[in-house]
Order: sequence, then C-alpha cells, then structure tokens
Amino acid sequence: MNGDTVTIPLGSGAEFDRVRAIAEALGEAAGPLGDDTAPVPTGEGMLVVSTDVSVENVHFKRAWIRPVEIGWRATSAALSDLAAAGALPAGVTIALTVPHDVSHDDVIALMAGAGQAALAAGTKIIGGDLSSGPVWSVAVTVLGHAVRPMSRRGASVGDGVWVTGWVGGARAAIRDWESGKEPEPTIREFFVNPLPRLATARWLAEQGATAMIDVSDGIAGDALHLAAASAVRIEIDIARIPLCPAVPLVAIRHGDDPAVMGARGGEDYEILCTLPASFDGAEACMTDTGVPVARIGTVVSGSGAIMLRDGVGVDIHGFRHEV
Amino acid sequence: MNGDTVTIPLGSGAEFDRVRAIAEALGEAAGPLGDDTAPVPTGEGMLVVSTDVSVENVHFKRAWIRPVEIGWRATSAALSDLAAAGALPAGVTIALTVPHDVSHDDVIALMAGAGQAALAAGTKIIGGDLSSGPVWSVAVTVLGHAVRPMSRRGASVGDGVWVTGWVGGARAAIRDWESGKEPEPTIREFFVNPLPRLATARWLAEQGATAMIDVSDGIAGDALHLAAASAVRIEIDIARIPLCPAVPLVAIRHGDDPAVMGARGGEDYEILCTLPASFDGAEACMTDTGVPVARIGTVVSGSGAIMLRDGVGVDIHGFRHEV
Repeated sequence: MNGDTVTIPLGSGAEFDRVRAIAEALGEAAGPLGDDTAPVPTGEGMLVVSTDVSVENVHFKRAWIRPVEIGWRATSAALSDLAAAGALPAGVTIALTVPHDVSHDDVIALMAGAGQAALAAGTKIIGGDLSSGPVWSVAVTVLGHAVRPMSRRGASVGDGVWVTGWVGGARAAIRDWESGKEPEPTIREFFVNPLPRLATARWLAEQGATAMIDVSDGIAGDALHLAAASAVRIEIDIARIPLCPAVPLVAIRHGDDPAVMGARGGEDYEILCTLPASFDGAEACMTDTGVPVARIGTVVSGSGAIMLRDGVGVDIHGFRHEV
Repeated sequence: MNGDTVTIPLGSGAEFDRVRAIAEALGEAAGPLGDDTAPVPTGEGMLVVSTDVSVENVHFKRAWIRPVEIGWRATSAALSDLAAAGALPAGVTIALTVPHDVSHDDVIALMAGAGQAALAAGTKIIGGDLSSGPVWSVAVTVLGHAVRPMSRRGASVGDGVWVTGWVGGARAAIRDWESGKEPEPTIREFFVNPLPRLATARWLAEQGATAMIDVSDGIAGDALHLAAASAVRIEIDIARIPLCPAVPLVAIRHGDDPAVMGARGGEDYEILCTLPASFDGAEACMTDTGVPVARIGTVVSGSGAIMLRDGVGVDIHGFRHEV
C-alpha cells in the first residue's frame, strides 16, 4: 500500500477497503499510501535505514498486549535503531501479517498504534504491505537522516560508558507474565509503550559521543556488540545501572538479583553510548532533553565486555531472540 | 543486522554467528551489515521505498519452492515495485522469520537467493532482521532513486495500455501444484524466478509512459487500480494479452480459458503501463531492453476496468491475497 488519505488509488475489494480504513485511522500519520512505492521525504545528511520484525509468541504474546500497543511497540523498537544512529526519522513502512480470523478493528488498532508512534517521533507511515499468516507479525522499516551517523564503532580506550533513562522494566514485565501474574501498570508500561530516545541520542551525538547502540539485547549483550565493533573492552559496574522504578521489587519477588536483571534486561530501547572521559553533561542532558543519562562504566583496552560488582566479574547472560 | 563482510561488529552468540554466515553467503551482495542502521547509497532523483511480505502457505508452499527460490522470488517481487516507479534500486532490507527447526543451510540458501536477486538488479542487501516464527515469512523493503517517479496516476483518455513480457505463468504453475501435479520446468520457472522489469520500465518511462503498475494482482485487478488512481476507464482486449509459453496448454488441461488465465493471473511481475497513442516503440523496446512490450488496450473516459473478448465484456476475478 502506499494515494493520499482522501483518494487512495486502489480498485475495489476487501483488501483495498482495508488499506483505505487504515489510511483513515492513521489520519495525519499517513503518508501517500496506495501506490507501488512512496517518496521518502528529503532531509539533511545521510539517509540510513533499519528493519525490525516483531513476531507473536516470540517478541510478545497476545494475552500480554493489546493491538494498539503491538503497533506502538514494534514501531518504537524500530525507531530506536534510528536513535542509535543519531538520525532524524524520515518515514516508516510496515509489513503486517495477521491470522484470517483477526477482527478488522484489531488490524486498524494495531496500525493506529504504529501511526501514533510514528507521529510521536515526528514522522509518518509512508508504505507497507498486508498479508494473512498463522500469527501476528509486524516488520517495520525505518528511514532517517543523520548529519553525523553514529555507529557501534568508535569507542576509544578511556571513554566513559553511559546509558540513557532506566532499564530492566521490559524484562520485569516479562518475568511477571511468564509466572502467570499481570505486571503492575508502571512495569507493564515499560514493555508495551517504550519511547525511542531520538532527541536524547541526537543530543549525545552532538556532545561528541564516540559510539552508540540501542539496548535491545540487554546492556550486557549490547556492550559486547559495541566492544566487538570498536575493538575495545568494556567494563560496566552493574550497581550503577539505573533501574526502572519497581524493578528491584519485581526482581526480589522472583528471587532475581535486581542489578543482574538490569544488566540482562533487553528491549528497553534505551541508548548505550561511549563519551570522552571529559564529558560532564548529565545535568544538561536532563535539562535539554528531559531524559537522564548515567555513567555506568569505562572503555579499556582488550576485547569483550565484563559486568562487575564491587570490582568482581558477574556472569550475566544477555536476553535475546535467537533463530 | 547491518559491519562489513570482513568484520561484522557483533558480539558472540548463535544469532550473531548466523548474521556472519549470511554476510559470507551474500558475498558482494552484502552491504555493511551488523550495525543498528545502514547507510542508503545516494543517487540521482527522488528516493522511493516499498515493502512487500511473502508468507509460507499464503504466497508459496515449501513443497513447491526451494529456499534459494523463496529468497529470489520475494526480493524480485519487491524490486518489481521499484520497476513500476521507474526507479534504479539503491538497497534492499530483509526481515526473515523462520521456524526453530529450520536448518542453518536453508536460512543461508534463502538469503543467498535474496542476494542474487539484489545483485541481478544492481543492488545489495543493506540490512535486515532475523527472528523465529511458526512459518517462513520474508518481508522485503526496497529503496530506489527515480528522476521522474512513475505512479498509477497519470493515464489520459486516448492513451494505449501496454504490458511487458508474458503473463499467466505463475498462475499456471499454481494451478498445477494445487491439482497435485508438479508444473513443467518452463512454467515452474515463471513462478519461482520472476525477473523484475527494471530496465524496461525505466525505458518506458523515458518514452513518456503516463502511468505504471506492476502486475502482482493480475492484469484485470491491476488495471482497476490504475484506472481508479488515474480517474479513467481501461478497456483491455484479453485476446491481445501475451501469454507465457505453455500457459494455453496448462489452462486447457485444467478446463480454463487461456486468455482468462492471462487476464487473471497475478504475480507475474510484468509492468502494465499507459503510453500516448502515438507510441510505436514495441520493436525498439525489444532491441533496447531485450523485453517485448505489447499493446493490449485503451484508456477511455469513465471509471473501472473492463476485459473484452471480441468487444464483449468478460467476467474475470483478480487473483489476490486478502487479509
């Protein structure tokens, strides 16, 4: 799908009626849907792209999360990759697969959630595809412009390691759901409505960040990627990792170590980055972008990433979806 | 996934080993995989994007088609949307979902097929994502540059309606498979190895084509979209539709009308376009691009699309995947 919300250039038929209903539900979040391709808005700097897929029973369960939230979360997770590049979003495409028996309203709600996440990031849904399939699956492609594209490469020995916001919330929610308990609203919110750190990441890039990655595999896992890409070693003090409120309580209730839950917890979509040792802008970050940033470690020579508590290595397994 | 084929910037782990193996299998078809985002190569004109998803048991069955062919077909189908925009491909991203029990070799073969289709179109796989899921699903996003982007809008009363190549082959193959028969190799080839008409479509755009669409829903269905977008009526003489070799035989064997199979048959990924009545470049198209183009109808005033045989309307149902 890619026409405008007034006249979608499609013939008649149920599939095309659905595209028209989606365009209507998207409202100002809809780009020129209905043609074979859509134009990508121009912008300053280099264009970057990323694709992310969210699959039912792998990345979420229908019992956990409403359609509008599936759309928001899948889109925000993809936009988080743009944040890690220090990019300004330019457009989103969605390939949506849903079972035959799914209600029209649920499909519309999912797309409305995707549209809200796009609008919140200052962009639109500019294209996509619809298909049936055995489970819900949302493949989101995001496009953005970056004047100085950030990557996982570039961390230097002596840099500080920093993380935005708070982590562990998504994992705590999953721990509750998996043990048969509905997470409390504040914890649930971290899983269903993540906020990609677009403005904060661009601010950190302007402050001279040397490397960036978004926290999708967990700080322990993503620190490994950043260390591998930059050919350095990363040491993180897990006691310094800022936890989402209530994560300590949830962790203790499940017999987990709160700091380990924070280091392992994935899908928080915060930004893990390295900054020169001289960076002292934590207060300015909060003032300028509304999001805190905390120093949790140091880049040293060597390879790999180590999680430390009181200076002693702690074994942490990253959280990821393996094929 | 988005590093280069020598040093993919990922930590250790089975998922990341797979990304490294994919980059190796892609060879020169691999862009800088392994970072959160990938840069999109620059080019002349406007950047356009399209997303297409192919789902097992909806768009193909594993019994019909090998993994390398799934990758080729899904990628070529998406590239066909770029052809319909008259665009030059700039990059491809793939979100691949496969069941847990799929062999590593099958995943690598699928991605190699996608890479071959990208290379054949003069582009690369520049990003993607991997996930598990209950069935094979391949969401392909294509990016391209178009100096004068073509769309479904723009057909004028009096224009001729033209189609590239030959149609009906993919539908004939499906007819055979669905009746329990393995299609003969020439027919099977039309389904598994479609060739997006990128160069021919750009040539037709240069010749002054007024509107374009790729034949994914079948000529009857896609003519409706083109007519709706352009606010015209399209009349097609089904006896003039060029059929893939052996389509008449397959149609007759199944008790179908060959011309109707041609008008209805989808997923051939030919280009349906409108050209000024003065266009007489059929021979030049063959000489310059190696692909024939045939006039099959006329744009008239009104709305909708009608399939005619000896001047009498024929009822044809389009072939499409509805959600």
